Parts: sequence; structure tokens; C-alpha cells
Amino acid sequence: MKTTRKLLAGLAVAALPFAIQTAFAADEAAADAKAAHGSAAAANYEGAPSPLADVPMHQNINPKAPSMTEAEFQQGKQIFFERCAGCHGVLRKGATGKPLTPDITLEKGTDYLKAFITYGSPAGMPNWGTSGELTDAQVDLMARYIQQEPPQPPEFSMADMKNTWKVLIPADKRPKKKMNKINIDNLFSVTLRDAGQIALIDGDTKKIVNIIKTGYAVHISRLSKSGRYLYVIGRDARINLIDLWMEKPDNVAEIKIGLEARSVDTSKYKGFEDKLAVAGSYWPPQFVVMKGETLEPLKIVSTRGMTVDPQEYHPEPRVASIVASEFRPEWIINVKETGKIMMVDYSDLTNLKTTTIDAARFLHDGGWDSTKRYFLVAANKSNKIAVVDSKTDKLAKLVDVGAIPHPGRGANFVHPVFGPVWSTGHLGDDSIALIGTDPAGHKANAWKMVQKLTGQGGGSLFIKTHPKSHNLWVDTTLNPDAATSQSIAVYDINKMDGKKESPLKPEVLPIAQWANLGDGAKRVVQPEYNAKGDEVWFSVWSAKDKESAIVVVDDKTRKLKAVIKDPRLITPTGKFNVHNTQHDVY
Amino acid sequence: MKTTRKLLAGLAVAALPFAIQTAFAADEAAADAKAAHGSAAAANYEGAPSPLADVPMHQNINPKAPSMTEAEFQQGKQIFFERCAGCHGVLRKGATGKPLTPDITLEKGTDYLKAFITYGSPAGMPNWGTSGELTDAQVDLMARYIQQEPPQPPEFSMADMKNTWKVLIPADKRPKKKMNKINIDNLFSVTLRDAGQIALIDGDTKKIVNIIKTGYAVHISRLSKSGRYLYVIGRDARINLIDLWMEKPDNVAEIKIGLEARSVDTSKYKGFEDKLAVAGSYWPPQFVVMKGETLEPLKIVSTRGMTVDPQEYHPEPRVASIVASEFRPEWIINVKETGKIMMVDYSDLTNLKTTTIDAARFLHDGGWDSTKRYFLVAANKSNKIAVVDSKTDKLAKLVDVGAIPHPGRGANFVHPVFGPVWSTGHLGDDSIALIGTDPAGHKANAWKMVQKLTGQGGGSLFIKTHPKSHNLWVDTTLNPDAATSQSIAVYDINKMDGKKESPLKPEVLPIAQWANLGDGAKRVVQPEYNAKGDEVWFSVWSAKDKESAIVVVDDKTRKLKAVIKDPRLITPTGKFNVHNTQHDVY
Repeated sequence: MKTTRKLLAGLAVAALPFAIQTAFAADEAAADAKAAHGSAAAANYEGAPSPLADVPMHQNINPKAPSMTEAEFQQGKQIFFERCAGCHGVLRKGATGKPLTPDITLEKGTDYLKAFITYGSPAGMPNWGTSGELTDAQVDLMARYIQQEPPQPPEFSMADMKNTWKVLIPADKRPKKKMNKINIDNLFSVTLRDAGQIALIDGDTKKIVNIIKTGYAVHISRLSKSGRYLYVIGRDARINLIDLWMEKPDNVAEIKIGLEARSVDTSKYKGFEDKLAVAGSYWPPQFVVMKGETLEPLKIVSTRGMTVDPQEYHPEPRVASIVASEFRPEWIINVKETGKIMMVDYSDLTNLKTTTIDAARFLHDGGWDSTKRYFLVAANKSNKIAVVDSKTDKLAKLVDVGAIPHPGRGANFVHPVFGPVWSTGHLGDDSIALIGTDPAGHKANAWKMVQKLTGQGGGSLFIKTHPKSHNLWVDTTLNPDAATSQSIAVYDINKMDGKKESPLKPEVLPIAQWANLGDGAKRVVQPEYNAKGDEVWFSVWSAKDKESAIVVVDDKTRKLKAVIKDPRLITPTGKFNVHNTQHDVY
Repeated sequence: MKTTRKLLAGLAVAALPFAIQTAFAADEAAADAKAAHGSAAAANYEGAPSPLADVPMHQNINPKAPSMTEAEFQQGKQIFFERCAGCHGVLRKGATGKPLTPDITLEKGTDYLKAFITYGSPAGMPNWGTSGELTDAQVDLMARYIQQEPPQPPEFSMADMKNTWKVLIPADKRPKKKMNKINIDNLFSVTLRDAGQIALIDGDTKKIVNIIKTGYAVHISRLSKSGRYLYVIGRDARINLIDLWMEKPDNVAEIKIGLEARSVDTSKYKGFEDKLAVAGSYWPPQFVVMKGETLEPLKIVSTRGMTVDPQEYHPEPRVASIVASEFRPEWIINVKETGKIMMVDYSDLTNLKTTTIDAARFLHDGGWDSTKRYFLVAANKSNKIAVVDSKTDKLAKLVDVGAIPHPGRGANFVHPVFGPVWSTGHLGDDSIALIGTDPAGHKANAWKMVQKLTGQGGGSLFIKTHPKSHNLWVDTTLNPDAATSQSIAVYDINKMDGKKESPLKPEVLPIAQWANLGDGAKRVVQPEYNAKGDEVWFSVWSAKDKESAIVVVDDKTRKLKAVIKDPRLITPTGKFNVHNTQHDVY
């Protein structure tokens, strides 16, 4: 079995650890692409605006720290947000990276810190100096900067949200019925990461229906229960509400709900269909409930609190992911740093019922089992999957898996030996974990890792299958090896055996090669099925100034079916098929 | 009707505003006593340790603020905690006093701030300079200090709590049955404020059973459901667990749950009797669930979050008061600055259910209606009483009352005209508000202020009656007029009329005079009934170095029955009769 360490062993320290350590979501992958691939992908990264860099913050000068000017402090703040905050946290309390608060950094001293920033470490710190990312002067500045108190970004209140809230087309001015001939069920909402847009692509014709201005690096697209409304949220915490009934589907409302964000969802329970939306932010650490048709903000709830273990206060517990329960009028809100899963009842916002489930720290992304009763979420740096029973609102189990699981929403299928399973790939090793999900029919297998497959390598972001398919697709987007990151592994579910560590080999398809894009760094990311479940779409994600593509594979034959290219398809990453997203088919 | 302004008009600005503004609980009254009464009561105040002053905190030097040395900063921190934090908050976000964050103070400038600190203002700021409390140098130092960033006291984690936790007598080494002949039902737990002790006084014999070392200025005493265990919590966040079954009741366990605290209660619901305890702290803003028999800390929950209105993040939402529901396995936890009432279900701590009810800001203290279904809590600076239905876990009503209601737990009785009512006095005016509490039998009166009585004056802390009595007792402890603060008003419930503003006059009893303590500042505080309901006890609270007493009045005749004096009775304030506390009789 390859582990993270073994994976690291064969590679230049300079490149890989950063990829392994920071890349926890497709939309965070650009920075990793840079570390792994150098200058081409670097264009991606440098094009990315920092959602926090421009925010005015009060300067706290620590008198014990080496002095710096106001201008240096401002530059340090900007570099920190661009290069460091993703791993170390805005307040430097540590998450994927180590804590960098002055009580720690002052003891290390400027010289040690400079060396560390310059050369990096095998444990995951990138070599910002020797890689040429930072100049000597910048390294010196950052070594001094992190001995200062972390400046705290401002809060974002209800008044702040209302100031950004716009209803472009009031609900009563919108169509009363679908005004277009698009087969909405098979529409794809495709994140154009660095363009700050989404592309709506007709899955039947493979034509672009509209390119819509959104927030930066849209993290996810979600559908209202009815399927009419599409919600997208950018990393800059901007939400766009798109009406798919319009002749040309477009924005009808927008709001900014914080300074940095990742998650949005809608109310799906009977009686609340399309009524409410919810979005969680990274900064400030909180979530907000909105009216579903207008995005009018109604209620903000802070997620600051104690870690599940060792019960210490954390000032920056980021909202990682949100899903809507079908069993109750609840959202499942996963709080990263504290490791708490909040089951938030939206039926009465004045008397707000919440069940807070202790899971494990560093909750990230996850999905439903096939029955949509159990929600499985990765506690990534804890190397666990937490299973929540949404019927009883209790933790069903914490399941040990490989290093840094990253399921996306995972993939459900019926294993020929073990029965119904849900699966995840990993960022930190090459394993694919299959977890039994059928406590009624396969009690002995339930909430256990029943089988481990071996994939192409670490750096996997997404795994996918479809009820109509017997293929299980696993990307390796962040693997530092180009051939690996540019291809896809696919397993035949029907051929799976009963061994705990299965020798089953996947077929490997050279997706990027099929896109025929010429030279330049590129990565293959996120298998996504069409509505029927007979096609799989992959993004071939190049630098911002290079051609990208979407490759469509015939699921039955595993052969190339189509390549979608368009000058407007700039840095496509996540793709969300309306039907599959609306009905949580994965 | 006298209002706060009218009350103020007749008095020296120097003295009163401080009393009105800061005194929200008996244990915070010493500082007020000083302001109102000068040097004798000052001894009380200066004897008070500052629970936060000794805590090491990181110094944040604001480069825009006038400079100060490390030693000056430390002194500023100490003075701030002793003199300012109660009203302005540790983080200076403002509560009873105005916000004092550098964004505000830097604009004012040192000279303006010095003048304000020296002379005070009619709006409530004490004249720290001209009163002689602070020297000119200290005023100058404080004017500079409050332009610095507020230093944040440290957090208090599970590990911190466990480090302070002591089981003095393990549960299995304690008596299996009551080993003393005390009539526990009629025992009184009496806070000896400045001594950091409680006195257990036998209500039948009026003798002191034991003097027990506790935290500083015990805020409340609470009984376990069975009545066996007494929990007391000091302002310094130390909890003592006292076993009343011991031959000589004494401490069996203790813990420190934070740096500053006010509230403790126990689990009372069927199946959970005596099993759990909960305590809320002012700093850090959080509460902790403990094992009832040992005080072993199990779970800490932060209260940081958004205000109910205008939905802004507050970093210091203090836990003001806690009561145990009898309808559900829940505690009602009242969070001051955010104005949220948390109904915390203690039946499953891993999957913690909480209903957070939006009430109104500045929640403080409150009590049950006579049926124990509805909990009424003062939102003091909002001039409202919030009513919570503990059966449905919903807000029943926000009721407008007088200026700064301070009910303690309030007083329930059957009004001859309006039916069942609950009542509160006020700190900010002389009114006594009667609120109808019987939605079933007197629907038109429910959750309305049905009648307003006029009392002796503002500065009332506690109101009390008993189901066996027709007397309603109202103290005026913090009234700046000595004759008023040293006497008690008592109304005959049977003579109450049907007028909205009743002309009914109380009888005034000179309680302090009956104690015959000689000269010196003194205040009469907190009527408390004995178990039978035929005696009312009052504390006559003198300076720390002067004789105090407890005066016992015959409820039927309203005549003096006994005076309890003892050299050990130093600064008695709150008194908690076991039977009445255990069964929430008030």
C-alpha cells in the first residue's frame, strides 16, 4: 500500500507536499497546480483575486516582534491571505497547516522562520523562496509578519449582507412557466473558475446556453427542490440565484454573505420546497438563512465554539459543506475546525432548533447514502468518515479510512459481495475506501470500511458512479505526476471481489490526451454523469490563458463521445448536472 | 410616576447614576454602595478581588494610541477590570455602559477621555476623578489605556477546568443516608459576599450550622432535585458542591469553570434527578455541563454569536442566568448581550439539541410562573420581560415594563382582580410591574402588564411573596436614599384594586433600624421566606469591617421576630431557603 510518505518519497519535496496539504477542493487546486506544474498553472494562481486581501483590518503591532512599517504589514497581510491562509487559517490557529500564532513564532525567531519559508519542509510546507514564489525581501517580510498578532478580518453583519443584496428581477416579474425549450434536467452548471462565471451547457446538444457572471471560483451549484432555481456560490461569498425558467436562464438575485465562503443549499422538506436557502461562510465563521426566491437574508448563526476534542475554543470554525435533509425540515451544516455537525431545523427561525452532533475535527465534504437517510462526511485531517443518521439526528459512526479522505459527495453502488456501499477517494494516499451503508440488509458491513481498492495515486478529489452504470470513476486531479493527474481510473463494479484489500485493477483512460489541447499544464477533474446516466463528463482544466475543454465519455463503451471546446470555457472545474444534483444522484 | 430621570434629578450626579447603571445583581451592589455611601461601603469594594486582574494577557499596543509602558498597561488592565468591565464589558463592546473600543476612543482623544473619567456624566458614568477613586495619574493612564486594543482574557478549555477540578469526598465515600438532625428543608444558604464563604443557617433554630469556604461573592445557591446537594457559584467562577447529608454539611467537590461567572443549576427532569449540573460563565462566554455528584466537566458550549437584533456578531455574550425545566430534560440558558434564550436538552450530550429563542438583548434574571410552564426573564436594558413557554420551547411574548426590570426570580400570586400574576421591581424606576400569567383562565390578561404599583423608589433588586402569604415584599437596596435602601415596602395582595396604575400604598418597615447595628452604611437586601412561608428573612448588609445582620420578620403580623447576628456573618447578601429554592417557590 502506498502511503503519503511513500508517495512523497519519489518526488521533489518542493512540489508535492503543498499539493497534498492544501488541496481539499477542486476550487483550491489552482495553487497546487502551480506548485506541481510550475509556470503555466501559475498563471491560474496569480489571476486569482484574494477575497480578503483588500479588506481593511486594524493593524496590531506586537511590541515583542521585529518591527515593520504599516506598508510592510499591509503587504504581509495580502501575501498571507494569498499563500498561507488556506492551510493555516485566517487567524493562524492551524488546520491543514500548523498554527502560526505569535506565542509559537516568536520563539522560533526570524532566522528560523525565514529558512522555513525559503526551503519548506517535507511535512508539507512549500518552498516559497527556492521556488521563486517569494523574493528574499518578501520572505524576510513574512517571517516578521507572522510574529505579529494575526489581524482579524471584520465581521459581516445582517446590515452588511443587506447592503450587498440585489433582487434583479422580482419574483412576481419572473415567468409563470418555463419559457425556454431546454431540457433543464440535463443542463450542466459548469464553474469557470478564474473567469468568475458559470457556463450553462445543454447536455443534449453540448451547446452553451449562457455564460453568467458570478462570484469568483464558484465552489458549488445547487438546485432548489423543484429544480427551477440554481444557486451558485463563489469563494468570495457571492451567491447568484439563477432562474432556469427564463427564456435565457440568468441571474435574478444576488448577495454577498461574507468575505469567503464555500457552501449553499436550499430547503427540500415537504412544505418548504424552494422556500428557503442557506449559505455557510469561511469568514466570518457563520451561516445565513435566506428567502429562497429572493436571497433576502433572514437569520445569521455563528459557528464559533469549542472543538469536539479537546474542547478548546476555536475562533474560526469554517462552514465546510451543507446538505438538505429529506427526513426533516433540516440542513446538515458541517463545521470544519470544531468537527461539529449541526442539524439546523428551518421550520421556525425565531425558535431555532439545532442538534449539534460531535463528530471529528476538520469536517469537509460528503454525501448521502443511496437511501438518503445517512449522510457521510469526511473529517479529512482526522482520516475518518462521520456517518449521521438524519432520521434520528444522531451520529451513527466514525469510520476510519485512508489519509485525508476527499469524497466530493462520494459514490453509491451495490457491491456484488458487500451489498450497498458508499465510497471515497483520498488526497493523502492512493486508496479508495468502500463503506457498507445498509444496516438493515447487511448489518455486519454497516459503517465499516468493507473494502479498500488501490487507485492510481494520491491527490484524488472526486469519485463518481450512477445507478444506471456499473463504472466507478476516480480522478487524481492533484497527483503531481502529469500522466496520473491527466487520466482517470475506472473500475468495473461487477468485477469487485470479497477481499478486504482488493487486487482489482482499474482501466486508465487518458482523458486530457483525448481533449487534444496541445502543450501546457492541465488537470482532469470531476467525473459528472448526465441525467440519463449514459455519459460521463470530465473537465480538462488548463491555465487561464490556455484552452480548456470538457471531455464526454460514453459510459457503456468507455470511449470518447465528444469534446466540448469554446473560447469562453476558461478554467472549467466543477460541473453540476441539474437532475443528478437536484435528486442527489451519485 | 417617578422615572429614572426624576429620580436622578434630586441627587448628586456624582453618586446615583453609577448605582442605577451598574447594579444588576445583589453581588454587584458593593460598588454601588460605595458610590452612594462613600467610605464605609468603600471598604466592601476595595476588599473585592478582581477575578480577571491577575490573568496574564497579551499586550496589544495600538500604534495610533498614546504610548504606555508594559507596567502602565498592566495597571490599566487591573483598574479596568475592577472599575469598568462590569458595565462596559471585558472587550469594551458596551452593555450597560457605552462601547469603549479604539475606533471610538481614538477619535475622542486623551483630553476628552480624561475629562469624562474625572467628572463622569449624568447618563451614568461615575466621576472617578472628583470622587477620589482614581488619582490624576490613574485617570491619565486609563484615558490612554482605553485607546489601546482591549486585551482579551484567555479562554478556559476543558483541560483548564479539569486542572481545577477536585473531588474532596468521592461519591461512594459519602453518607448513604442523612447523618444529621437538621431540618434541611428549612436550611438557608447565605452568601457572605466579601468573605468568600456561605453560611448555612438552620431556619428553625436560627443557628449557624457551618461556614463554608467558597468562591468570591457567591452569586446563587441552587439545590439538586432531591434537595441533598447544594451548588454555589462565586463571581470568580468557582463552584462548590455541598452535601447536606453529612453530619456537618460541607464541600465534597469543587471546580473553577472560567474566570468570571454567575449561574449554576442542576438537572430536574424525571430520570435525570441529581445527575447533571450546568454552569454559565461571563468570561469566557460559555457554559459547561458537569456530572451532578462530582462536578466532573463533560461538555463546554460557547455562547458567542449574533445579537437578536440587529444581528451583529458579539464576542462576549455572557451567560446571565440558568433554570432547569420540569417539562423537558432541558435547561433554560439566558444569554445577556445577544438576547437569546437557549433551551438546552441534556438528555444526549453527544447529539446536543438546543432551541435558541430570539428574545431581546440584555437578558438577566427571571423565574417561573406558578405553574412552572412559563419562564419570565428580564431583558433589563431593553425594558422588557421575555416569556418562554417551556412546554413548546417557543417565545410566548415580549412584555414592555418599566426601566431596567430586576425581578430576581420574581413573585407569583393570585391577584384579586387580574388572577395569577408574576411581578418584578425595577432598578431604573419606582414601578412594580404585575404581568398576567394564566392564558387558560385569564386569557385577556395573559402576558400583559395588567397593573403597575408604585414603590418606594428605584434601585430594587428583589421582590418576593409565598403561596401561604398575602404579602408582597419589595426591596430598594440600591436606592441612593439611605432611609429607602434600609427599609422594605410590603403590599397587601388582598387589597389590590383593578386599576392599571394602582394608588395602593405599601407599608414601609425599617428593617435596618430593627437590626440595631449602629452607624455605618448599610443596605437591606433580598426578602426570602422560610419553608413554611410564615417568616421573611432580610439581609442587613454592612461594610466588610462592620457588623451585619439578618432580620427575621413574622409574615402575618409584619413584626420583628428575630435578629441573627454573629461575627462570622460578614457582608451577608443572598439567602436561599432549601425548600423554596428546591421547589421554585416564589
